[in-house]
Amino acid sequence: MFELSAQGTFSAAHKVKGYKGDCAGIHGHTYKIDVMVRVEKLDKLGLALDFHKIKATLNTILKKLDHKCLNNLTFFKNHNATAEWIAVYVFREMKEKIKSVHSITVWEGLVNSVTYHEN
Amino acid sequence: MFELSAQGTFSAAHKVKGYKGDCAGIHGHTYKIDVMVRVEKLDKLGLALDFHKIKATLNTILKKLDHKCLNNLTFFKNHNATAEWIAVYVFREMKEKIKSVHSITVWEGLVNSVTYHEN
Amino acid sequence: MFELSAQGTFSAAHKVKGYKGDCAGIHGHTYKIDVMVRVEKLDKLGLALDFHKIKATLNTILKKLDHKCLNNLTFFKNHNATAEWIAVYVFREMKEKIKSVHSITVWEGLVNSVTYHEN
Repeated sequence: MFELSAQGTFSAAHKVKGYKGDCAGIHGHTYKIDVMVRVEKLDKLGLALDFHKIKATLNTILKKLDHKCLNNLTFFKNHNATAEWIAVYVFREMKEKIKSVHSITVWEGLVNSVTYHEN
Repeated sequence: MFELSAQGTFSAAHKVKGYKGDCAGIHGHTYKIDVMVRVEKLDKLGLALDFHKIKATLNTILKKLDHKCLNNLTFFKNHNATAEWIAVYVFREMKEKIKSVHSITVWEGLVNSVTYHEN
Repeated sequence: MFELSAQGTFSAAHKVKGYKGDCAGIHGHTYKIDVMVRVEKLDKLGLALDFHKIKATLNTILKKLDHKCLNNLTFFKNHNATAEWIAVYVFREMKEKIKSVHSITVWEGLVNSVTYHEN
């Protein structure tokens, strides 16, 4: 089993609606995203999947979030703009493009992270 | 499945009794602790668990170890003050307060780590 | 369950034969290797396994790759010198010496990694 990890970042504003504390106010983060892909077998070149493909796909998705206020985006009208829902959002978008995506980790700052996977 | 990770640190002295080598002498580390919590479903706010709660709980536990000689503490009278037993200690203390704690990772320096989990 | 992680590095040249892109040309990396060992029970000293043993074993293996052109080594005559095959190579070499090795992670640069494990 091979597990490939690649990273991307985006900077966005958000607030956690209904939260009793600082996070209820509009603020922002430079989010770091780790995408993990699971592949059983290597191709003829000895690659599980081309890192360039993973990163290009991730960057296209993150570009839609970058320098935005997350709460204004369609997905986050129905889901609070927490790191948890950001992870779900990126997971679903990645999964549409790359079936072997296993998990998405969202770093909100340097020390807190949320990983989302379905199995 | 959501996996939340948060970190804390403490600085302590310790020695590994019975070890044949440098670690048998009293020395110390700035330990870094990662706590990982596993949660199936999000609450109404879209949170798996509030990071502030995880970190506050962790900090209360680590405060008992900070600036101590670990070998002098009750738990480590019966268990050698290795990174492995530190991981078990913090795991048990965290588990009492937060049931969804899945694992504890102890970093002894920047490159060596021990993760403890029960399942 | 205890999972111990230790790290090592080596610097080597390589090219990915048959790749359509930059990686087909000879270039190089300072690779970082994480080895993860899984152990159920601690020994009498409270250690899962001595970090010094893990690191010494890893360093002996990585020394054979350090400052070499990977494509010229016997293993990589039959397997393309991708991060994936480097992970398999290090895994097999480590497994011969330490049965409890569970996975090898190869970092090619700071943000891309491949983890290989057999179960």
